Amino acid sequence: MPRPSATKKSTSRTSKKKSVRKSAKSGVTSRVSKKATTRKTTRKVNPNKLTYSFGATRTDGDTSMRDLLGGKGANLAEMTSIGLPVPPGFTITTATCKRFYDEGKKLPKVLLDEVTKSIARIEKETGKKFGDISDPLLVSVRSGSKVSMPGMMDTVLNLGLNDKSVKGLAKLTGAERFAWDAYRRLINMYGDVVMGVDHHHFEHAFDLIKARYKVKLDNDVPVEGMRELCEDYKAVYRKHVGKPFPQDPYRQLKLAIEAVFMSWNSPKAISYRRINKIHGLPGTAVNVQSMVFGNMGEDSGTGVAFTRNPSTGENKFYGEFLINAQGEDVVAGIRTPKPIAELPKWNKQINKQLMDVRKTLEKHYRDVQDIEFTIERGTLYMLQTRNGKRTGPAAVKIACDMVKEKLITRDEALLRIPADDLTQLLLPSFDPKSKAKANVLTKGLPASPGVAVGKPAFTADEAVARAEAGESVLLVRKETSPEDIEGMNSAQGILTSTGGMTSHAAVVARGWGKCCVAGAGEIEIDADHGEFTIKGQHYTRESLLSIDGATGEVIEGKVQTMPPTLSNDYKTLMRWADSKRTLKVRTNADTPDDAKRAREFGAQGIGLCRTEHMFFEGKRIVAMREMILADTMKDREKALVKLLPFQRKDFEGIFTAMDTLPVTIRLLDPPLHEFLPHGEAAKVELAEVLGVPTSQVHRRVSMLHESNPMLGHRGCRLAVTYPSILRMQVRAIVEATINCLNKGVKAKPEIMVPLVGIDNEIEMLRAQILETINDVRKDKGYKGRLNIPVGTMIEIPRAALTAGDVAQHADFFSFGTNDLTQLTYGYSRDDINSFLPEYLKQGILHNDPFQTLDTSGVGQLVEMACTKGRETFPKLKIGICGEHGGDPASVGFCHRVGMEYVSCSPFRVPIARLAAAQATIQQS
Amino acid sequence: MPRPSATKKSTSRTSKKKSVRKSAKSGVTSRVSKKATTRKTTRKVNPNKLTYSFGATRTDGDTSMRDLLGGKGANLAEMTSIGLPVPPGFTITTATCKRFYDEGKKLPKVLLDEVTKSIARIEKETGKKFGDISDPLLVSVRSGSKVSMPGMMDTVLNLGLNDKSVKGLAKLTGAERFAWDAYRRLINMYGDVVMGVDHHHFEHAFDLIKARYKVKLDNDVPVEGMRELCEDYKAVYRKHVGKPFPQDPYRQLKLAIEAVFMSWNSPKAISYRRINKIHGLPGTAVNVQSMVFGNMGEDSGTGVAFTRNPSTGENKFYGEFLINAQGEDVVAGIRTPKPIAELPKWNKQINKQLMDVRKTLEKHYRDVQDIEFTIERGTLYMLQTRNGKRTGPAAVKIACDMVKEKLITRDEALLRIPADDLTQLLLPSFDPKSKAKANVLTKGLPASPGVAVGKPAFTADEAVARAEAGESVLLVRKETSPEDIEGMNSAQGILTSTGGMTSHAAVVARGWGKCCVAGAGEIEIDADHGEFTIKGQHYTRESLLSIDGATGEVIEGKVQTMPPTLSNDYKTLMRWADSKRTLKVRTNADTPDDAKRAREFGAQGIGLCRTEHMFFEGKRIVAMREMILADTMKDREKALVKLLPFQRKDFEGIFTAMDTLPVTIRLLDPPLHEFLPHGEAAKVELAEVLGVPTSQVHRRVSMLHESNPMLGHRGCRLAVTYPSILRMQVRAIVEATINCLNKGVKAKPEIMVPLVGIDNEIEMLRAQILETINDVRKDKGYKGRLNIPVGTMIEIPRAALTAGDVAQHADFFSFGTNDLTQLTYGYSRDDINSFLPEYLKQGILHNDPFQTLDTSGVGQLVEMACTKGRETFPKLKIGICGEHGGDPASVGFCHRVGMEYVSCSPFRVPIARLAAAQATIQQS
Repeated sequence: MPRPSATKKSTSRTSKKKSVRKSAKSGVTSRVSKKATTRKTTRKVNPNKLTYSFGATRTDGDTSMRDLLGGKGANLAEMTSIGLPVPPGFTITTATCKRFYDEGKKLPKVLLDEVTKSIARIEKETGKKFGDISDPLLVSVRSGSKVSMPGMMDTVLNLGLNDKSVKGLAKLTGAERFAWDAYRRLINMYGDVVMGVDHHHFEHAFDLIKARYKVKLDNDVPVEGMRELCEDYKAVYRKHVGKPFPQDPYRQLKLAIEAVFMSWNSPKAISYRRINKIHGLPGTAVNVQSMVFGNMGEDSGTGVAFTRNPSTGENKFYGEFLINAQGEDVVAGIRTPKPIAELPKWNKQINKQLMDVRKTLEKHYRDVQDIEFTIERGTLYMLQTRNGKRTGPAAVKIACDMVKEKLITRDEALLRIPADDLTQLLLPSFDPKSKAKANVLTKGLPASPGVAVGKPAFTADEAVARAEAGESVLLVRKETSPEDIEGMNSAQGILTSTGGMTSHAAVVARGWGKCCVAGAGEIEIDADHGEFTIKGQHYTRESLLSIDGATGEVIEGKVQTMPPTLSNDYKTLMRWADSKRTLKVRTNADTPDDAKRAREFGAQGIGLCRTEHMFFEGKRIVAMREMILADTMKDREKALVKLLPFQRKDFEGIFTAMDTLPVTIRLLDPPLHEFLPHGEAAKVELAEVLGVPTSQVHRRVSMLHESNPMLGHRGCRLAVTYPSILRMQVRAIVEATINCLNKGVKAKPEIMVPLVGIDNEIEMLRAQILETINDVRKDKGYKGRLNIPVGTMIEIPRAALTAGDVAQHADFFSFGTNDLTQLTYGYSRDDINSFLPEYLKQGILHNDPFQTLDTSGVGQLVEMACTKGRETFPKLKIGICGEHGGDPASVGFCHRVGMEYVSCSPFRVPIARLAAAQATIQQS
Repeated sequence: MPRPSATKKSTSRTSKKKSVRKSAKSGVTSRVSKKATTRKTTRKVNPNKLTYSFGATRTDGDTSMRDLLGGKGANLAEMTSIGLPVPPGFTITTATCKRFYDEGKKLPKVLLDEVTKSIARIEKETGKKFGDISDPLLVSVRSGSKVSMPGMMDTVLNLGLNDKSVKGLAKLTGAERFAWDAYRRLINMYGDVVMGVDHHHFEHAFDLIKARYKVKLDNDVPVEGMRELCEDYKAVYRKHVGKPFPQDPYRQLKLAIEAVFMSWNSPKAISYRRINKIHGLPGTAVNVQSMVFGNMGEDSGTGVAFTRNPSTGENKFYGEFLINAQGEDVVAGIRTPKPIAELPKWNKQINKQLMDVRKTLEKHYRDVQDIEFTIERGTLYMLQTRNGKRTGPAAVKIACDMVKEKLITRDEALLRIPADDLTQLLLPSFDPKSKAKANVLTKGLPASPGVAVGKPAFTADEAVARAEAGESVLLVRKETSPEDIEGMNSAQGILTSTGGMTSHAAVVARGWGKCCVAGAGEIEIDADHGEFTIKGQHYTRESLLSIDGATGEVIEGKVQTMPPTLSNDYKTLMRWADSKRTLKVRTNADTPDDAKRAREFGAQGIGLCRTEHMFFEGKRIVAMREMILADTMKDREKALVKLLPFQRKDFEGIFTAMDTLPVTIRLLDPPLHEFLPHGEAAKVELAEVLGVPTSQVHRRVSMLHESNPMLGHRGCRLAVTYPSILRMQVRAIVEATINCLNKGVKAKPEIMVPLVGIDNEIEMLRAQILETINDVRKDKGYKGRLNIPVGTMIEIPRAALTAGDVAQHADFFSFGTNDLTQLTYGYSRDDINSFLPEYLKQGILHNDPFQTLDTSGVGQLVEMACTKGRETFPKLKIGICGEHGGDPASVGFCHRVGMEYVSCSPFRVPIARLAAAQATIQQS
C-alpha cells in the first residue's frame, strides 16, 4: 500500500471525490489520496520527454536535472557538455519510473520508440550497431536515483551480445576469451537481475567448468572453457526461466530497463531508503551507455579517485587504479589496486589527461569530485563524477582552500560544511583505523559525545580511589545518582545499563562534556562481585574497555584516540559564520567551568543555567534534603537559609565567567523526590544525619512518589506551592548580581520560570520575583540600576496555545523543546526506547523527534507561540534552550521563525554558529 | 496586585504603550494591562450615571441590569416598577465601585451630589428628613453584587440617627426603647463595619450594662439601660477611632458607602469568590434604602419565603416569619420562627397581600422567587426577591409545572435545570437531614458517585465471603488491582487510600455505577490486623461507615439514604430535551450490563468500549500474562489464540445489548506492565501457573517498567510493535459481528485506534485492520455487507495539530480529552493532587481541567482538529469520549464546535442529553 511521504501537505480529501472510500462500506480497501511530487529544476522540463541523450552530437541534460535524471545521469550529461570523454548514452527519467509504477508496472509504449531513436544516435556516434554480428554495440544498463544508493539497485553490463555477435566481438577485438567472458557475464547478470534466476545456479555451473579444467581461479579458465561456460549458462537460464536466453538485443534492453525500475522497490532498496532517511523520490532513472572495457589488455585499466584528499582535505589527487580490469574487479577486492600516484609510471599520457580532467571538474563543479574512469586500449573514458564525501576536518580545509583559490565564495564555503561534522573537530575521537579492527560488545544510547578508555569501576568511591591511584577508569553503574558525582568526575567516562538520554548520568556528563553511554541494556551488572556480563561473557575490574559517546558503542580493549586540534581554517570559517549569522548562540551551562568552556567555543551568553545540579554536591544535598523533609514552614526556611550562600556563590562564579554576557537562570525544575535517596541504607543514613526518625524519611519519600514524575509536581508548580524556595533562589541571584556589580563584574542575570502552562502562573510568580528583587535591593542598600528580565519557558503545549496571554507577564520566551516534544507527542524520553527503534525501522518516524525538531507538529506550536507572543508584546525576546538548539536543521527552523537566539551544550556551540550562518544564507 | 480575570482575552500589550514596563529596567514594578469589562444590558447605560433610584416617583433600573445594579438593586427596582410595596431608595452602581478602586479608593466627587439628590427624592416620598430632629429619615446601606455573596460584605442599618434625632424617633414612634436600640445598633455596626472597631469592645460594654441591670438577655435591658448603652458605645467608638461618633448623617452615609466598597476586597470576600468560582465582576453595588422596622411591636414582623417548595418543587408557599422582629433576628436564630402557613392566624390581611405578591412575582419573573419581607405596624414591605435555589428533583418538577401553567416555554424549562443536578435524581443519595448530623472522618477523591454504607473488608476474599453471608461491606484497600474484581463487585462501595480519579478502583467503579472514594490519604491501612487508622483513631471490621462518592466524604456510622425515583416530570423533560438536541449522546461501556444500563438511560450507542478490562477476569488474565511474558512470536500467538474466544464472546454480548446502535471499540490501550503482578508472591505464583522460571517473570516485569507510563509504550504504539495483538482483537470484533449478523442482531462495530500522534501510525494500522477484516470475512465465508468504520482517538496534541493528515486515514475522530488535557497541561491525573488544590485555592486555575474542558487551551486543539479534519474529509464523524463528555459546560463546547456526539459514563447520559438540548437552545 503506497504511503504519502513525510513531506506531504495534507492533500485535501475534499478535492478527491473519486478517492476510494470503499473501506467504510465494505471494510476492505484503504483510501490514500495520492500526492503530487513537486520538483525544482533550472530549465523547463518537457513532461512528455522520457529519455535524455548525452554524446558528441547531442546532450539534453545537465547537472541541475538530478531530480529527473538521477545523480549519475545528470553528471554524465554535464561531463559530456564540458567536453570530457564520456561514452555516449542516454538516461531514462525518474518520472518514467514513476509512470511505470502508476501504469501497473508497464513501460510506456512511447518509451520504446524513444529508446530506439536514442540507440540509433549511439550507433551513429560509435560506428557500432546494436546486435550487429561483426561490430556489435554493447551497452550497460544502470540505475541512478537522485540520491546515491550504492549496490541497492540493479545493473546489467555487456547488453547487446548474443550467440552471433559474441563471435564478431571476439574477432573484432582479437580477444576471444574477453568476448566469451563478456557474454557469460551478460547471461549471468541478465538471468539474475532481469529474470530472478538465483545466482548460485550460475556459480555451480562455473564450479563444474573449473573442475573440468582443473583450475581454481576464474581467470585460469581457458578460452574453450569460457565458451563452454556460456553454453552451460544458457542451459541454466533456460532451465530456470523456461525460455532460451533472448537473442534480440532490443528485447534484452526492454526487459533490463523494466528490471532496473523493479529494483527501485525491491525490499533491500526500500530498507536502504528507510535506514538512510531518503524520502519523497519518484523513482530511479536508467542510464543506458555504450560499454567501454578496462579489461582489454595491459593498455587498459580502471580507477576511482577524489580530486582532493577526502580525509584531510589536502589539495592532492587521491585514488587508486587497476590495470587490465573492470570497475567491478576493484569493488570485488580480489586484486590490490595501485595508488593513483603511480599512474604516470604506467601511462604518462593518461595521467596528464586525468590531471586535466581533475582540474576541469573542480573548476566546473567548484567542489571536490569523486570520479570513476576506465581506459580502454589507451583511451580514457569518464564513467562517473559526483561531489566527494569528506570528513569534518577535510570539509573545513577544502572550503577554506577553495575560497582562497577563488573557486567559491565565503557563503558557499559556509554552506559546504554539514554543521554536525564540526563535532569531529572538537572532541577527541577514536582513530578510525584502530576502531575498524575493534570488537563492539554492545551498544547503548549516545548520551554524551566524546570517547573514553578505561577499566570498570563499580562504585563512585572505587572510581575515585582508583583514579587517584593513577588508573583510567570507567564508572559502570545501573544508573547514577547525586551520590555518584565524585566518582563520575574522576572517571574517564560513564557507562550505565539503564536510564535514557535525560538520565542523571547523561545530563551531568553532557554538562561536563564527558563521554557517556547510557542505557546499555545488554549489560548485567553484578557490583557485589565486581563484574558485569554482556551476552553471557564476563567482564571484571581488569577488563579494558573503550566507549564512544557519539555512537553508544562499548568496545573491547583499547581503541586509539585522536585529540582535536582547531585549525586556522576552522577559525577562519567560524569568523565568516559569525559575520553572517543574525541568530545569537548561547549555551546551556550550570557551572563556571562550563561557562568558561562555552565562552571559548563562542557562546554569547547562557541560555539555560539549571539550578538543580547545584544542590547535589557535598553539604548542599544534605541541606536540600532537610528542606524537602521539613514538616513546617519554619523548618523549611531554616534549611533554605543554609542553601542560600551556596547558590549565591555559584551564581557569582557564573556571572564572573560570563562577565558582560547574559545568563538565563532557570528556577528549580525537577520534582523534589529526585533529591531524596532511594536505597534503604541511604534513607537510614539520611535520617541519622538529619536527626529525624527513619519513618519520617520513608513517609516523605513515599508521599512524594509520583506515577508520572514528568507530568507531576515540578517546575513552577514547586514555586507556587513552596514560594520560599523561589524567594531563596531569587535572593541568591540578586545578591550575587549586586556583589558582582560592586566588584565591577557586569552581571546580567535573567530569571526564567519553568513549566508555565497558565498565564496566571507566570503573572503571580513574576510579581513575587519582582517583589523579592526589590526586597534584596533594599536589604543590600543598592542604589544602582538593576536590570533583571523575568521570562518563561515555553515547554507545555498550553503555554504555546495561550502565548498571547502568557506574554503579558514575560520579558522573554525560551522554548524548552525537550519537554514540548515529550508532551506534543506524548513520549517519555526515558521510556521511548521500547518503541522508537521500531518506529524508525518501519518509517513511521523519519527522525528521533528529540534530536531534530518536528516542524510539522511541535514546530506549529513554536511558531504559534512566537506569533501570539509578539502580537501581545512586540519586543518579546525569544530563544530556545532545548537540545534542539544544537541541531543544525532545528537551528535553521529557529532562524526562520525569527528567534533571537539558540542555546545548546558547550560543545555544540560552534555547530550552532555555523548552522545559524547557513540558515541566514539560505534564507537570503 | 490586580490580576486580569479568567475571562479576559489577551489584551494586546502593543496597544498599551503606557503600560508600566519599569520591571525590565529596575526589576521592581509589574505591568498588567487592564482589562475592559464588557457587559450585556438590555438598555443603553449612561456611564456617567452613578446612582439609580427606585420609588413611587421614579425608578431608573430593572431586573435586566444585574451587572450594573447587582442582584438586589436590580430586583428592588423591578419590584418597585411592578407596583410592589418597596421602601424607596437608590442603588450606587457596580461601575462606581470599580471607579472607586481605579481612583485610589476614593469616591468620585460627582457621586456625592447624586447621592444628595437621591436622598432628597426619598425624603420627598417618605415625608421624613435625613438628620431631622423630629422625624428623621433612616436608611440602610447594603452591598449587593451581581452574584449573591451572603454575609461576605458589609451592611449598616439605621443610618441617619444621631444624639438628637434618636429622641425625635422615640417621640414620633412612641417606642423609646426601640429608638435607643436602633441607635446603639447603628453605633455598633458603624464602628465595626466602617471604622474597624473590633466588635468585642461593644459586646463588652453591653455585658457591663447587663451586669449593672442584673439581666441576662439583651431584650431585658430597660430603656434607661439602652440610653446608657448608647453613651457607652459612643465612648468605645471615640476611644478606638480617636474621634467622636459622627453626628452629620451625610458624613455617616459617605463613610458607610466607602466601607461597603472596601468590603468587596476584604480577604473573606476574596476567598468566598475564589471558592465559589465567581470571576470577572467589577465590584459591588450599594443599596441605600429607607428603613422599615419589623420590631415596632406586635403588629410588626419579618419573614422569608419561597414561592414554591425548593426541596420538592411542590407548588405551595414555603417559608417562615417572626412577629416583632428584624430580619437580623431570623438569621441570628435566637427565636424560632413560625411556618408561613400560620400567617393568616396572625394577620389575614397581610397574608392575602403576601399571597398576591407571590402570584405577581411568579408571573412576573416566571420562576420561583426567594423573598424577604417586613411588616411595619401593619404595612407590608418587600425587601428582596431573587430566583430561588432548589434541589434537582424540585427543579425538574417546577420546570414541568410552569410549562403546564404556561408560565414558561419548554425551551425555558430545559434551560432552568442545571444539568448536573440530574445526578440527584439518578443515584441514591444520603438524606441531607441525616448527613447534617454526621461526623465526617476524612475526605478522599469523589471517584465514582453514589453512596454506600457498610463495614470494612480488607481483602477481596473477605469482602466476597462476608457479602455472601449477608453483610454490607466496604472494600477498603490501599489500591485495588485486577485480582480484587470479585471483592469490588461484592462490596457496597470501595474506599482506597492511594490512587487517583483514574486508578483501577475509580475506573472500574464508575463503569459499574458503584460508589467509590479513592485516594483518601489520611487512612493508614493495616490489613494484617484488620484495621485502619484516621488521625490516630482506629477502625476495625466492626466499624460502620458511610461513604459518599460524589463528595469523597468518609463518615462515621450509618447515614440514611434516599433511593432515586424517576418521576414522570423527569421523563417528560428528557423527551423535550431529546426532541431539541442535535448532539447525539453515547456511553462509555465495557460490558453488556453497562451497555444495557446506559441504553436505559437513553444512550444512542457506545462511544468508548475499552477492551483492556476484558482481560482482567479469571483465566483471561493468565492468558494475557502468558502473552506478555512470551519471548517468541510463536508463544505470543499461542497465548493470543486463547484470548480470542473471550474477546469474541464479550463483543457478541455488547453488540447484542446495543442491537442496531453503534459500538466504538478501542483497541488495547494501557501499557502491558499494567497486566502483570507486582507483589513478589504473585510473581512466584504466576511463574508456577505458566511453568516458567520466576526469573523470567522478574526480568519481564523489570524490562517493562517505565518511568512515565502515561507517556510510554501504550496505545497504538503497542499495535505497531505487537501487530499480532491488533490482529487478534480485530479478528474477535469481526467474528463477533458476523456471528451476530447471522443471528439477526444488527451489530454495528466501529474500530478505534488509540493514542495516534502521527498520520503514518493510523495509515499503517488502518491498512492492517482492513486486511484482517478481509481475512476474517473470507475465513468465515461471509457474503453480506460489512460496514466497519475505522477511526482514531485524538488525544495526543500532535494528532490535533496534524489532524488534516490524520483525517486522510480515519473515518472518525473521537477526542480523548482526558489524555489530551494531561498532555496539553503536562499534568498527570494520578499525581495532580500534590498541587491542584493549591492552584484552585490561589485562583491560578478556576476549575479542575479534568472535570471541565479547558476551552482556551485544550479547546483550541479540539477546534483545530475539527476544522482541519473536516477540511480534509468533510464527512468525518467527530465525537468525544473523555470524561468531559458528561460535563454540561463541556457538552456545550462540543455542540458549538460541531461534534456529532458526546460519550460519557452511563449515569451521566441523562445529564449529557439535557446539556446537549440546552446547548442547542442557547445557540439558536
